[in-house]
Amino acid sequence: MKQDNKTISGFSSMRKRDKIKWLVENFFKDPESVMHELKSYWHKNDEQQKILDGFSENTISNFPMPFGVAPNFVIDGKTYCVPMVIEESSVVAAASAAAKFWMKRGGFKTEIIGTEKLGQVHFLWHGDPSILFTHFDDAKKVMLADVEGIVANMRKRGGGIQKFELIDLTQKKENYYQLRVSFETCDSMGANFINSCLEQFSHSLKSFYFNHSQEKQGLEIIMSILSNYNPNCLVRAKVSCKIEELGDFPNGMGAELFAKEFKDAVEIAEIDPYRATTHNKGIFNGIDAVVIATGNDFRAIEACGHTFANKSGSYSSLSHCRIEGGNFEFWLDIPLAVGTVGGLTNLHPIAKRSLEMLENPSAKELMSIIAATGLAQNFAALRSLITTGIQKGHMKMHLLNILNHLKATESQIKSATDHFQDKVISFNSVRDFLKTTTLN
Amino acid sequence: MKQDNKTISGFSSMRKRDKIKWLVENFFKDPESVMHELKSYWHKNDEQQKILDGFSENTISNFPMPFGVAPNFVIDGKTYCVPMVIEESSVVAAASAAAKFWMKRGGFKTEIIGTEKLGQVHFLWHGDPSILFTHFDDAKKVMLADVEGIVANMRKRGGGIQKFELIDLTQKKENYYQLRVSFETCDSMGANFINSCLEQFSHSLKSFYFNHSQEKQGLEIIMSILSNYNPNCLVRAKVSCKIEELGDFPNGMGAELFAKEFKDAVEIAEIDPYRATTHNKGIFNGIDAVVIATGNDFRAIEACGHTFANKSGSYSSLSHCRIEGGNFEFWLDIPLAVGTVGGLTNLHPIAKRSLEMLENPSAKELMSIIAATGLAQNFAALRSLITTGIQKGHMKMHLLNILNHLKATESQIKSATDHFQDKVISFNSVRDFLKTTTLN
Repeated sequence: MKQDNKTISGFSSMRKRDKIKWLVENFFKDPESVMHELKSYWHKNDEQQKILDGFSENTISNFPMPFGVAPNFVIDGKTYCVPMVIEESSVVAAASAAAKFWMKRGGFKTEIIGTEKLGQVHFLWHGDPSILFTHFDDAKKVMLADVEGIVANMRKRGGGIQKFELIDLTQKKENYYQLRVSFETCDSMGANFINSCLEQFSHSLKSFYFNHSQEKQGLEIIMSILSNYNPNCLVRAKVSCKIEELGDFPNGMGAELFAKEFKDAVEIAEIDPYRATTHNKGIFNGIDAVVIATGNDFRAIEACGHTFANKSGSYSSLSHCRIEGGNFEFWLDIPLAVGTVGGLTNLHPIAKRSLEMLENPSAKELMSIIAATGLAQNFAALRSLITTGIQKGHMKMHLLNILNHLKATESQIKSATDHFQDKVISFNSVRDFLKTTTLN
Repeated sequence: MKQDNKTISGFSSMRKRDKIKWLVENFFKDPESVMHELKSYWHKNDEQQKILDGFSENTISNFPMPFGVAPNFVIDGKTYCVPMVIEESSVVAAASAAAKFWMKRGGFKTEIIGTEKLGQVHFLWHGDPSILFTHFDDAKKVMLADVEGIVANMRKRGGGIQKFELIDLTQKKENYYQLRVSFETCDSMGANFINSCLEQFSHSLKSFYFNHSQEKQGLEIIMSILSNYNPNCLVRAKVSCKIEELGDFPNGMGAELFAKEFKDAVEIAEIDPYRATTHNKGIFNGIDAVVIATGNDFRAIEACGHTFANKSGSYSSLSHCRIEGGNFEFWLDIPLAVGTVGGLTNLHPIAKRSLEMLENPSAKELMSIIAATGLAQNFAALRSLITTGIQKGHMKMHLLNILNHLKATESQIKSATDHFQDKVISFNSVRDFLKTTTLN
């Protein structure tokens, strides 16, 4: 392969300044100004920036995400101001509006249904299956003894290893078996703990069968890793009130019709995967914003939640609505494997502040807060969709962003807001409008 | 409800400084230092910070995410340095390593399978179904004519409205019908365009049946919104080489065994949803990092990708592996509705630089780059899992983060790295180690 100046060797070992230099010189037309701009996003305290740089590799700057707050969240009787990191406009506004709405109607009620986390050792057994099963109880004892050094500390905090299963999956793939282990990891998300246990299990398992069975080479470990699918690490968040307490809505919609159409909208998301995807995406707008703000891993939360949404075999809504005896009930069941200690939760300076803002919650309390925010988001989205539609609010925000970007004056912002009331907003249309008004 | 100082009215209209004041005084023990810390993350240029603040609501600071780059990505013969925004350590390192590995073996090949985006108008028809269907062709003409003002501009760019279907879903829910419309939105993600069209469709549809049928109140619009499930906005990314070209791997694993166990690992993710969730999560580690870096919406990408992973009815792997005629092939099919114009892509200052780094790609080209990064990530993860395990690399990074946080000296970092080679790493264990070594 021909080497050009766009490929490079030894990049990861280069000093940060040299990485940036190579990058701007080879991929940008105006290297000096790009370098200046990238540096302008560094934290002014070098030590602080060094900590931020360490979170990932080949880091050249900080990517700023808006850090906002949604006040007035009453969850299980306690009032929170919820930190949210999200780049999509109107998500924080929607969460705040829904929080305030439900604050006056008893707030959010939550229930932790479970906190079980899972891990797997995937292996092939090439020998006689009866040998594998006959010796398994002894193998299990050895495996558990071998992780004692890892588990002892977690046990002190109230956690440890729970279930331990050998699963025969040979009907799905020749010779394929699985060790599925469940863990309680208390206030930590537990990834490192679980993976450390699993990798030890795989070593112990392999050497046990090598030493204790006639099938010396019978066991082939493929891989050992936690599962991000944790359907029993589950929380329910709920709101409810008398239908008439819902009040009146835009376009003259009364409480009865609102409740009915709201339930229709939820049912549609329950039966149609095309709608369910969008419906759940809105829930994750709220969930991910808190997950990121508290230093948790949103890809893990997304993957788990969407697999859970498919548990019936057809992708469906994560939230549900019931109207019964004059009562309106709306709830969300969502698996959330999150932590409030370990990982980035205390290392990322703003994540640490987010947790402090929430009065340093336990992992269970954080599950409740995140689920309530997801439900709030979903309520606000459906309320907009069945009343005014979502475009009005969205486009108003988007117009302001474009106007800010184009450095519009206060009077230009006012006239543009009037002008675009009933028109299509795009970057070009706004720029053209500003040109025209300036000429006039 | 009793008002305390943790609830507030009119928060969204308050000035930023007053929002921060209320927040730190009511939710933090040390208001002054928190205020100082939040402000330390503002961009020093006020105008620039105002633009960042405008992306969301109630914004009080910037949440810094690590902005890194993965060089040496050869995709369809062109060399890229891929911008990645991700807070999880070893993701950028893994992507870079896989990019370099495949650079020497022909790079990534991609294929855009489709770019169709979808939207829906959900409605109930309370009248005689034959009336709905009899008039539909006429209604369609009116609907299309009514969005002409919105569509004209998109048509000039080569896009517009494609399919237009009336779907009877009354077997799933009483009186429920759906208008499902497909769009081509060229280089924009298209959310605003699609939603503007759909909201207009719903108004036109309602007034058409009110004016042209005997069922004046027969049609009840529930909601109109794009679908985030776009299975036909699809890209395939692929790598392949002769098995012997794979080379040798850690732990003395040769190319043949590597290829076999790699394929085993992919097959396991194809048949077991618990593994598939984690497997795909790893793919999204790579995908989301580029999606965020380029100002696209990762919740939309996640929701769509995971629903797609379930298209068979059982949640399954998004990537696949084949060994045939001495060839190793590994590929990923993933729907990616992304844009390179509109939304935040050009408004967010660093997202704009990310796109420039990629030489301002078309939306299709960005689909290819993102898919290749997801595949690279998956390759690197599986390579670790079937050889050394993932803990080794992960814990090394995590240890460094903790040491940086605790402001360890160079010599402390060295001795801690030696000490923790074979021990469990946690914040407390590292802190205790540093205390001990300082005392010695």
